[in-house]
Amino acid sequence: YKIDQDLKRSILINAGLSIAGFFVTLKLIPVASRYVIRRNLFGYDINKKGTPGGTLRVPESLGIVVGIVYLVLAIVFQYFNFTSDSNWLVEYNAALASICFMTLLGFVDDVLDIPWRVKLLLPSFAALPLLMAYAGHTTIIIPKPLIPYVGLEILDLGWIYKLYMGLLAVFCTNSINIHAGLNGLEVGQTVVIASAIMIHNIMQIGASTDPEQKQAHAFSIYLVQPLLATSLALLSFNWYPSSVFVGDTYTYFAGMTMAVVGILGHFSETLLIFFAPQVLNFLLSLPQVWSNKLSPPRPHQKGKNKAHNLELYWSRHLTCVIFFSAFWVRSMSTASPA
Amino acid sequence: YKIDQDLKRSILINAGLSIAGFFVTLKLIPVASRYVIRRNLFGYDINKKGTPGGTLRVPESLGIVVGIVYLVLAIVFQYFNFTSDSNWLVEYNAALASICFMTLLGFVDDVLDIPWRVKLLLPSFAALPLLMAYAGHTTIIIPKPLIPYVGLEILDLGWIYKLYMGLLAVFCTNSINIHAGLNGLEVGQTVVIASAIMIHNIMQIGASTDPEQKQAHAFSIYLVQPLLATSLALLSFNWYPSSVFVGDTYTYFAGMTMAVVGILGHFSETLLIFFAPQVLNFLLSLPQVWSNKLSPPRPHQKGKNKAHNLELYWSRHLTCVIFFSAFWVRSMSTASPA
Ligand SMILES: [Mg+2]
Ligand SMILES: [Mg+2]
Repeated sequence: YKIDQDLKRSILINAGLSIAGFFVTLKLIPVASRYVIRRNLFGYDINKKGTPGGTLRVPESLGIVVGIVYLVLAIVFQYFNFTSDSNWLVEYNAALASICFMTLLGFVDDVLDIPWRVKLLLPSFAALPLLMAYAGHTTIIIPKPLIPYVGLEILDLGWIYKLYMGLLAVFCTNSINIHAGLNGLEVGQTVVIASAIMIHNIMQIGASTDPEQKQAHAFSIYLVQPLLATSLALLSFNWYPSSVFVGDTYTYFAGMTMAVVGILGHFSETLLIFFAPQVLNFLLSLPQVWSNKLSPPRPHQKGKNKAHNLELYWSRHLTCVIFFSAFWVRSMSTASPA
Repeated sequence: YKIDQDLKRSILINAGLSIAGFFVTLKLIPVASRYVIRRNLFGYDINKKGTPGGTLRVPESLGIVVGIVYLVLAIVFQYFNFTSDSNWLVEYNAALASICFMTLLGFVDDVLDIPWRVKLLLPSFAALPLLMAYAGHTTIIIPKPLIPYVGLEILDLGWIYKLYMGLLAVFCTNSINIHAGLNGLEVGQTVVIASAIMIHNIMQIGASTDPEQKQAHAFSIYLVQPLLATSLALLSFNWYPSSVFVGDTYTYFAGMTMAVVGILGHFSETLLIFFAPQVLNFLLSLPQVWSNKLSPPRPHQKGKNKAHNLELYWSRHLTCVIFFSAFWVRSMSTASPA
């Protein structure tokens, strides 16, 4: 079991790095808060409105600390993976590029408030390196009763499957972002989903006999472990009553990372199940979206309510469309057990 | 000449994308300027001090537009390279990750003014994915008279060569940054060096018979062409009298991109020759550094002169050290004709 030993060693080193990342993030957030406040990146907590806490300036965009610590951890880890081959490195670097580009876009959005049109366009580009590097299957298994009609048992969707993965990345990013403004919810749901992914990966590595599948799940652990660790550090500050806000930087970063983890771990179908509450949230908010009666805009972004309403409207609308397209592609088959 | 045809096709597509990038950048800069000014990211032009132009608020950090347009172009181009293999993709994605991380750091620096300690540390991490993916030679040719002493004709430096390349990346980034504050100079020198790189690449592709070397130079063209195009668009705004400033975002981004191009094109020695004026500038500023009589800090960053002086001092100091280490490694051999 040479390869298993190597896998275990890589995972343990990754865990060590993640724990170090947890403490670094914990230490850096108060420092970064001062810098952020000095630059007028702050918000007010609507959950404390009317109380003295409601007039307190809460530092915003602290997701940038998590993003940078995460990227440094991920870069350093490259040097410790003992089962690396060229193919592994392509996917890993693509993951780094995608996550980094998304973090950059999130921070630019926090600082400059880019218009929603751009916001919908640019994240799609961020997912492209990932899809180019993707070396997994692009096939779905046709359900038994449909086989006579399709004439095939396994259908290779090719670029349509890649399109589905791209839409998944945009969906994950937006679904985390929707809950922005409620203390701890963006980070909280990330921690929950990341934990679910971790457990799924460990179980699959234990259960699987296919070394390639083990590799894919180990790959996914390497990327999700630091996310979990750094997010936990952020959560300790963002928990009610929040002493920091996480910003679009965090929601973009975390959403993209989880999409990357699901795609390159070859279990994007299972990932959608982990995102079930977000999916449900979209379904529930559908009537609201159609009648255009929107919930109040995010509290800590004052002075642009109207623009924000529109933005929220469109991001919900479009994410629904994306979700249903993704669902449609999936519904062409039963999900293969991931 | 099948491979040559493919190369030519890839280069032409890249040129087309670059031209499109030029116009997009040209169109986006005025739009982004409004967003940047709204966020209080601006500076005053010291070159117009005393005149009415000296009190005008000039938008800062417009390098972010160039950076994002460049990254989108580079990502899109992935899909058009016809001579791609897995190895190519590793290096290309590593380049994307490095450049993107550096752009992120530059923008964070512009917005939050991160302390110089962090500024020296983080860019080193940005170069790591590059060194990991580097598939070229790590050997130097020992000069004839020294062969009897060393006992080898070709010496494989291994990780020392990689260290040299890492230092080169930090050097390139800082040497572009030193000239910040003089209208058009950051962008101007980038355009000059990028043009030199382009010409060098084209000449080498014409002269070389080794297909692998042709590939490496083509690779370098793919990355330097969009840099040249987007920088030219920025220069048209940054030329005296500047209507925009480029920010650390641009200097970090451009320096890193040129380092990446030199390293992955396997002509880092030639790159140092193109950077000769910057090298000279360091040498000339040496006495100034030692006596700590520094030139005035960058004009459009007021209110933190002292911190900035220190920062400038250290960045000059360290870059000198870096330069000399790099020089030392190189001086162990005559440069192989790149
Ligand atoms: Mg926003
Ligand atoms: Mg600065």
